[in-house]
Amino acid sequence: MKATLMYGSGDVRVETVPDPVIQHPTDAIVRTVRACVCGSDLHPYHSLPPTAAGTPMGHELIGVVEETGAAVTTVKKGDFVIATFAFQDNTCVFCREGFQTACVHGGWYGTPENGGLQAELARIPLADGSLIPVPGLTENSDLLPSLLTLSDVYLTGWHGAHMGRVEPGKTVTVIGDGAVGLSAVLASRQLGAERIILMGRHEDRTDLGTEWGATDIVSERGADGVAQVLELTRGEGSHVVIEAVGLMPAYQQAFGVVRPGGVISRVGVPQYEDAPVGFGSLFGKNATLTGGPAPVRAYIEHALPDVLEGRINPGRVFDQSVTLDEIPAGYEAMDARKALKVLVTP
Amino acid sequence: MKATLMYGSGDVRVETVPDPVIQHPTDAIVRTVRACVCGSDLHPYHSLPPTAAGTPMGHELIGVVEETGAAVTTVKKGDFVIATFAFQDNTCVFCREGFQTACVHGGWYGTPENGGLQAELARIPLADGSLIPVPGLTENSDLLPSLLTLSDVYLTGWHGAHMGRVEPGKTVTVIGDGAVGLSAVLASRQLGAERIILMGRHEDRTDLGTEWGATDIVSERGADGVAQVLELTRGEGSHVVIEAVGLMPAYQQAFGVVRPGGVISRVGVPQYEDAPVGFGSLFGKNATLTGGPAPVRAYIEHALPDVLEGRINPGRVFDQSVTLDEIPAGYEAMDARKALKVLVTP
Repeated sequence: MKATLMYGSGDVRVETVPDPVIQHPTDAIVRTVRACVCGSDLHPYHSLPPTAAGTPMGHELIGVVEETGAAVTTVKKGDFVIATFAFQDNTCVFCREGFQTACVHGGWYGTPENGGLQAELARIPLADGSLIPVPGLTENSDLLPSLLTLSDVYLTGWHGAHMGRVEPGKTVTVIGDGAVGLSAVLASRQLGAERIILMGRHEDRTDLGTEWGATDIVSERGADGVAQVLELTRGEGSHVVIEAVGLMPAYQQAFGVVRPGGVISRVGVPQYEDAPVGFGSLFGKNATLTGGPAPVRAYIEHALPDVLEGRINPGRVFDQSVTLDEIPAGYEAMDARKALKVLVTP
Repeated sequence: MKATLMYGSGDVRVETVPDPVIQHPTDAIVRTVRACVCGSDLHPYHSLPPTAAGTPMGHELIGVVEETGAAVTTVKKGDFVIATFAFQDNTCVFCREGFQTACVHGGWYGTPENGGLQAELARIPLADGSLIPVPGLTENSDLLPSLLTLSDVYLTGWHGAHMGRVEPGKTVTVIGDGAVGLSAVLASRQLGAERIILMGRHEDRTDLGTEWGATDIVSERGADGVAQVLELTRGEGSHVVIEAVGLMPAYQQAFGVVRPGGVISRVGVPQYEDAPVGFGSLFGKNATLTGGPAPVRAYIEHALPDVLEGRINPGRVFDQSVTLDEIPAGYEAMDARKALKVLVTP
């Protein structure tokens, strides 16, 4: 089959690799209907050292089950399914507590062992916990893009809002106008935020943010951006800050605009390990720092009817579509900010 | 009057300074009945550079009102009062949200302008917001030590438990067997924690912790301590970790033992600004970091009846008593871990 591999920063290739096979009785093989490129894929696109083996890429997928292992009971050949961006058994103690990305038996795609989902076929471990069937769907449904966002991006935005404890009456600042940031705007609106300040500088993106509920757009960054958010909030700061970038300047903006007693919720994968957390940043104003890899499995059943019944259309983050062969151009377009998020049709 | 000044690390002196006077109509002058030395006073005791002027010390006090400014309405001369360790108007937007240590008009003791509370007299700014009257109390009440803990230490422990969202069924790990750590044990028990693991190595202190509700004592530190807490929790980690030390090794223990989706609540004043918060420490397991200077004003009215009616006796953290003149020996005893917390009777 064809699959996407990254051989170093900027070096994405589509190659023919062996078809995946059932390795464990809990596995399923899924044929990809749609996959996509994630903002987090751009981090290795910038920094991956050259590698002879190539790293399999992709972790978002909707598709049709081709084959199931002997122990799989909840999906069968021919089912249309959404795969969560991490796999989990959905039964362990952490899964039951709603943190499936910490599943004792779970793991991540994009490794030599588990492969990537920007490919024609995928082996899904722990299929009963990791595949969500969507009955009655056809492969040419208009809902495909929005369903694909339930694999990661929209529910990652939701996770940011949920962990930030967005609720009616709160002011929320979303840092980053990428697909996750825009999804966080949408989720914050769904959760009843009174005011949503979107920090972003790409007008086509912030326009979608406005449509999805942003009440204010701040295009400045750094100290200027912080000053503007403070001005918008009478100098008080934001109850909730959703940081959807993952870079240190975004983190610095976050603790600059968070209100005393407020929450910074991170959903951009941090490209740093150490950061300011002392008296001058978080502690002095009792700011809370939260967030992490979204346990989309915890939220997907709640979100699915909203998509199927058309109440939300989070698939609008996809503004470019490529075939699998064209995926290197898709990475390039996202990296150059020419595309917000790239849909892949094998 | 006599007051305590610190001239550099290890150099605490009691000197005669001018009596404080009303500077603003919202001020009150309070005669100290009891003050004390705080674990946080040991941080400058270790690290304060030599200073010619001397830094006024102390921020915990109970006393009797001597004089009030023209605008003060809630306390009067002769009232027995508790002073919160920071002052606040208790009316601003952040005060109303329960974060009085971020009061727009508030501030800290221990500055040349505001003076310290390890002194015979104190000027209390914003007296209506910062003094809590305790009607009917006499100066030889057995309750004085416990009432004094409402100024800071017990309610700082409470803040740690509250911000950590301790509730029935949760496992709590408290790092540090100082007076704040022990108070956090007591508060966690009051909030219904199922299991309370106290990390500390001073048996006389951990004995009090056990009496107050600790179910397990871990005396090891670092990787060994982390391993032992994980073993006690079936490898899962602790839902809540209350970090009551403020030093980096305690922070490292905290993210080592916190459970995926769990909360680290800091009440030890961090002696660092940068710390690990990335994928390998907090983000990867969706751990939340919270805490800060306790808004004791938010909790004191709830806690006062518990003390007055004898349901809790948090004053047991005081195991040594000195006069104001003897306070340098009090610092020394706390620094040498010969005293848990030192009560000061002017």
